Amino acid sequence: MRKYNVAILGASGAVGKVMLKVLEERDFPINNLKLLASARSAGKEVEFKGEKYKIEEVKPESFDNIDIALFSAGGSTSKKWAPIAVEKGAIVVDNSSAWRMDENVPLVVPEVNPEDVKWHKGIIANPNCSTIQMVVALYPIHKEKNIKRIIVSTYQAVSGAGAKAIEDLRKETEAKLKGEDYKPEALPNHIAFNVIPHIDVFLDNLHTKEEMKMVNETRKIMHAPDIKVSPTCARVPVFNGHSESVVIETEKPITVEETREILRNAPGVIVEDDPFNNIYPMPINADGKDEVFVGRIKKDLAFDNGIAMWIVADNLRKGAATNAVQIAELLIKYNLV
Amino acid sequence: MRKYNVAILGASGAVGKVMLKVLEERDFPINNLKLLASARSAGKEVEFKGEKYKIEEVKPESFDNIDIALFSAGGSTSKKWAPIAVEKGAIVVDNSSAWRMDENVPLVVPEVNPEDVKWHKGIIANPNCSTIQMVVALYPIHKEKNIKRIIVSTYQAVSGAGAKAIEDLRKETEAKLKGEDYKPEALPNHIAFNVIPHIDVFLDNLHTKEEMKMVNETRKIMHAPDIKVSPTCARVPVFNGHSESVVIETEKPITVEETREILRNAPGVIVEDDPFNNIYPMPINADGKDEVFVGRIKKDLAFDNGIAMWIVADNLRKGAATNAVQIAELLIKYNLV
Repeated sequence: MRKYNVAILGASGAVGKVMLKVLEERDFPINNLKLLASARSAGKEVEFKGEKYKIEEVKPESFDNIDIALFSAGGSTSKKWAPIAVEKGAIVVDNSSAWRMDENVPLVVPEVNPEDVKWHKGIIANPNCSTIQMVVALYPIHKEKNIKRIIVSTYQAVSGAGAKAIEDLRKETEAKLKGEDYKPEALPNHIAFNVIPHIDVFLDNLHTKEEMKMVNETRKIMHAPDIKVSPTCARVPVFNGHSESVVIETEKPITVEETREILRNAPGVIVEDDPFNNIYPMPINADGKDEVFVGRIKKDLAFDNGIAMWIVADNLRKGAATNAVQIAELLIKYNLV
Repeated sequence: MRKYNVAILGASGAVGKVMLKVLEERDFPINNLKLLASARSAGKEVEFKGEKYKIEEVKPESFDNIDIALFSAGGSTSKKWAPIAVEKGAIVVDNSSAWRMDENVPLVVPEVNPEDVKWHKGIIANPNCSTIQMVVALYPIHKEKNIKRIIVSTYQAVSGAGAKAIEDLRKETEAKLKGEDYKPEALPNHIAFNVIPHIDVFLDNLHTKEEMKMVNETRKIMHAPDIKVSPTCARVPVFNGHSESVVIETEKPITVEETREILRNAPGVIVEDDPFNNIYPMPINADGKDEVFVGRIKKDLAFDNGIAMWIVADNLRKGAATNAVQIAELLIKYNLV
C-alpha cells in the first residue's frame, strides 16, 4: 500500500495536536511526516507514534515532495502559505476560514459532499466547527424532506478559540472560586460562570462572522443555496464540545420517528435520544469522540412541518481535525493524490 | 400610609431569601412580617432590616390576620396551603407552577398584564422565570408588530433549580479542577463544564415541563392564545442569570431600529446593544439587577419579518422574587388589599 508524505502547518496549536492524534489513531498511511509552524513555535517537540518530532519553521522548501499538507494555522498564514504549498505540488486541506467561500475551492464534509473533493485545484477547505456538526445531522434529513429553514443557537466550548482560551476558562474559574478576578486573554469577555453571545468579529449586518459562516458554509456544503439559516452563536463555560439547539422547517411533512430513523442510518451520526432515562447528547460525553450526537428530537411547535433537535460534537475532532483527516482519506480513496 | 401584614412561605429557600432582600430594598409597607416554612426548615433564623426573625412551621393559624402571603415553596406545598391561606383572608402570590394555568387564577407580569390582578379570587400566580424575562421583552413588540412565532433556546443558570443546585455547580467545578469526580444532587446530570438539555421532567410530547411552561404561560400572560412558541431549555454552568436566544416572526414588517426604539421605551427593559464595543447582555452583569436586558438585536435571516435578540435577566429577581413583590405592590396600587 502506498504511503504519503504529510506536512502539518500549525502542529503545536489546539487543533494541530488533535490532528496528530487522529492521524495516529486512524493509522493514516504516512511515509514522511513534517511538522511546521511559524518562527514563534519552531523548535518545540511533539510526539507521534512514540517518536519525537521537532517542529520546523515553515519555508517554501518545507513543501518539497509533500503530498498532503494539513493546515491548522490562522487565516492570514493560510492565505500566504497555501498557494506556495500548492505551487510545490502539495494538496492543501485548510482548516482556516481563508478559502472556504472561494468558488475555486471545495468545502467538504465527507458525510455530506465527498464528491466535491474531485474538483479541487490544490486547496480543499475544512468548514467551520459549528457548521460541520450541524450539516452532518441535517443533510440526511434534507435529502428526504427538503429543509426550508434552519434556526440554530449554539453553546460553544472555549477550545474552539484555541489553547489560550482553554487556559482562560481554567484560570478564571479557579480565580472566581477563590473570590478573585481574572481577565481572559483570548476571549472577548469573562467566561467563568458566564455566557458570551459573541464569537469572532461583528459584521455590518450585526451578525458575527461565526454566525455568517453557519449561513454561507451550510449552503455551499449542502448545495442548497436557498436554505434560510438563522444563527446565534454563544460561548459557554465548557472546555470542549459544541452543543446546538436546532429547529428546522421542512417542505415535506416530518415526524419524530422518521427523523430518528433517518439519523440512525446516517453516516457519522449517533442518536442519543432516550429522554425519560436522561439520555441526550452532552459535551462532556462527546469529548474525545469522532461522531455527531443527536437527541432531544421533538415535533416542533412553531411549524406545521418542523422538528427540533439537540446536536453535540467534539469541535476539535469532528469539528476540525477528524474532518480534515477524513478529507485526506478521500483524496486517497479517489486516487487524487 | 397603610401597612400590611405579610407572610412568606418558603423563606429559607433560594427565592425566599431574595424576596426578603427585595421587600427591604423597595421598602414595602410591612406592618407585621411572618416567616414560614415546612417543619424541616422551621427554627432557622433570617435577617430583615437588621432584625432577626425566626422561621415558624406553617400551620392554618399562621395566616390569621395576614393580608398578603408570598409563597415560594414547591408545587405540592402550594396546592395544600394556598387555599387555607385564602380561606383565612390572605391574598396569595404564588411562585410555584401549581396554579399558573388554572383559569380562576391570574398569571401576572406587571409590565405586561397588570390589570389581570383585578380579577383574582384569592390566588395570583407568578410565572416561570424563563417566561417572565421573555414576555417583558416581547410584549411591547407584540403590541406594535403582532408576533406570530417565537423560537427560543435558553441558557439557564443553576440557581433556578434551588440552593442545592448552586452548591452542585460549585462543588463539581472544584472537584473537576482537581481531577476529581462529584455527582450533582439537585440536577439530573453533570453540570461542571457541561450543558444539560433537560430542565424539569419530560412530558409525552418529548418537551420538558419547563419548555411547555414557556409555551402556555406566554400565551396566557400576553392574552395571545395563537402565538406559536418553539422552546428548548438547557442548563449551563452559570450560578445566576438566565440567557435566551430568541427569534420572532411578526405579522407586520419590523426593523432593528424599530425594535431598539420599542425596547428603549419598554417598562422594565434595558437595551444593551453596542456589539462593536463588546456590549451585549451577559448573566454576570444581570446578576443582582431587577431589569430585563436585551441586546444582539439583528434582522433575522430566516423570516422576511423577523428579528433575533438575546435576552438576559436575574432569574431569582425579575424571574421570581421581584416579580412577586411587584404583584403585591399592584394589589396595593389598585386597592385590592
